Amino acid sequence: MRRQNLAVVLGAVRAHSPLSRADVAGRVGLTRAAVSSLVDELIERGALTEAPAAASGRVGRPGRALTISDHGPAGLGLEIGATHLGACVVDLRGKARLWRRVEQPNADRPAAQVLAEAAALAAEAEAEATTLGLRVQGRVIAVPGVVPNHPGGLVERAPNLGWHSVRIAHHWPDQNTVPEPENEANLGALAEYWNAEQPVETFVHVSAETGIGAALIIDGRLFRGARGFAGELGHIPVQPDGPRCTCGSRGCLEQYAGKAAVLAEAGLGRHSDPVALLAERAGAGHAPTLRALDRAGNALGLALASAVDLIDPDALVLGGAYAELAEWLLPSVRAELAARVVVRPWAPEALRPSALGRRGPLLGAAMTTVRRIMADPTQLSVD
Amino acid sequence: MRRQNLAVVLGAVRAHSPLSRADVAGRVGLTRAAVSSLVDELIERGALTEAPAAASGRVGRPGRALTISDHGPAGLGLEIGATHLGACVVDLRGKARLWRRVEQPNADRPAAQVLAEAAALAAEAEAEATTLGLRVQGRVIAVPGVVPNHPGGLVERAPNLGWHSVRIAHHWPDQNTVPEPENEANLGALAEYWNAEQPVETFVHVSAETGIGAALIIDGRLFRGARGFAGELGHIPVQPDGPRCTCGSRGCLEQYAGKAAVLAEAGLGRHSDPVALLAERAGAGHAPTLRALDRAGNALGLALASAVDLIDPDALVLGGAYAELAEWLLPSVRAELAARVVVRPWAPEALRPSALGRRGPLLGAAMTTVRRIMADPTQLSVD
Repeated sequence: MRRQNLAVVLGAVRAHSPLSRADVAGRVGLTRAAVSSLVDELIERGALTEAPAAASGRVGRPGRALTISDHGPAGLGLEIGATHLGACVVDLRGKARLWRRVEQPNADRPAAQVLAEAAALAAEAEAEATTLGLRVQGRVIAVPGVVPNHPGGLVERAPNLGWHSVRIAHHWPDQNTVPEPENEANLGALAEYWNAEQPVETFVHVSAETGIGAALIIDGRLFRGARGFAGELGHIPVQPDGPRCTCGSRGCLEQYAGKAAVLAEAGLGRHSDPVALLAERAGAGHAPTLRALDRAGNALGLALASAVDLIDPDALVLGGAYAELAEWLLPSVRAELAARVVVRPWAPEALRPSALGRRGPLLGAAMTTVRRIMADPTQLSVD
Repeated sequence: MRRQNLAVVLGAVRAHSPLSRADVAGRVGLTRAAVSSLVDELIERGALTEAPAAASGRVGRPGRALTISDHGPAGLGLEIGATHLGACVVDLRGKARLWRRVEQPNADRPAAQVLAEAAALAAEAEAEATTLGLRVQGRVIAVPGVVPNHPGGLVERAPNLGWHSVRIAHHWPDQNTVPEPENEANLGALAEYWNAEQPVETFVHVSAETGIGAALIIDGRLFRGARGFAGELGHIPVQPDGPRCTCGSRGCLEQYAGKAAVLAEAGLGRHSDPVALLAERAGAGHAPTLRALDRAGNALGLALASAVDLIDPDALVLGGAYAELAEWLLPSVRAELAARVVVRPWAPEALRPSALGRRGPLLGAAMTTVRRIMADPTQLSVD
């Protein structure tokens, strides 16, 4: 009960700060005495700070202003991609306070080696967070693979890294800082949901990082499927007799709208940042790149039509690399959806690019801890 | 609280009857006095009957045997198909006590006329239920169309009947017996879930009645989508450049696995019961029919591969007409799934025909009322 009341008070301050204790009491419907005791506890736990009354122009209302602390509890997000490592620290206000991205090839190297490097990056990020006055309270790592529903730290399969049954803790040097793995597409979708000013409650978020991943937010919650495999959009057959896919099937979406397929179709070679390269060429009017992106958009539209038919979402969000290429993808995706989704009404604006772009998964990883603290502030130790 | 305890007692008797009052107390963890009061109320409301101790061989255990009443509260299910009307009454034990099926063309006739005929059939069924000692407590009507999430008795669209925005109550002669509409595919899936001895919690149920419909049971609940359109499997594109569909798109599943498409491909003409005709021809080894069903199975497998990729269900169930044709459809559906679902593990036995066949939607309609009563027995008036 007290736990829930702590969360309610914290949520009220987050949504409406600065607020005085009296303001909070008015908003949450608890007595001033009860609110004061809850506020004291939240200050002790480092979640709230109380400052001299803000210059809010509210003349005649005394009381010191409560705000969510920006120098205390924080979440660490980590990311392992096929060609990079990332780290990010988010404070309780949800603001990213530091970003690290290291371009390096991770595919088909031993998991132990990659994870040791991720751990070194994590330690650096935590050290810098400390100098900013932040305390990392939880760690989540985004991986391009399948994380089962009851993971216990297991990454079941990450084909683009060459991982099979990798248990993070087995390879993490410091057992006190082992991060919890989660699928990158899932974290991208959650970041989108958490960052939205007016969140849509049921949507499909599709992103292209190493492969193509989609994630389903259903009634405001991540739907992981019976075994954690939900949202495997990349292997939906869009041309039943199309080219052989790495998965063994034929004509999968990934063969048309995956990074490698688009680069090949555009006649472009390897590049340290293929997404930036595609955007640059498309922006310069390079015809083969424009055709490749158009073809990718058509395939994506076909696969998304199936998703709309099956799931009936309120919105489709193009995240990750797709967000950065949206300008050239959207017209053909929209055209396919308009042609294919005809039984139910479909508004073109229900398809939109994510504002987070490629930062989504890392931000989602870091925000997971912040969201948990907001839901249960007793997770925070008393200073 | 009492409402919940009534449901718990009723559920215990349903699962384990015959039980004495003492048995119930032992099972549900309430005092004998509390259980006796709850049992008395359930008897008054007509949900339970108490008989002399059953000859269960449990020597030395006195007490009269409680069972769910089979002559009292009941649910009426109705069904409107393109070529038939149906009615069914289910008692509190979940047993269907009467079935009616009238073959008649309903497509493109005025909704008022069709609903007046359905109402007449419903009145007949209720009258017969009364002679069986049953009291109809609720009415649900299965329709081959879209029922919005907050229906208010509205059928938004039923293309195979030619209905647009039909409000059932507007055309129902007796305002005391207006049934609540629900999509037939949804009711078929619920019937499957409710009737299973060991229910699977997350599955896709696909059926072919007038069109092709799928429904998603997610974590034991029907998932209706953001607007009630979820599970529109029939218009998933299985061949992007395939034949024009009635919906306006191309290469939809319905063009390969819908009743009309299969009949045409098999070279068969109109028939009062096309499913029986197909089963008969296939059973007799009629090559064009076998080829048509094989082709339908391939297309169905392709569409279901997309559903598995997106939703990651524990099982796929072929219901309705597909259940009756399963013998000839399953091999090609299985083959496609085996070839296409390769990222996640897929066991062939996760695809199975429904035992309910074409009775599913009607049974689901009638059982809806029974399930509601079991969840809240205070819905029953005291005799």
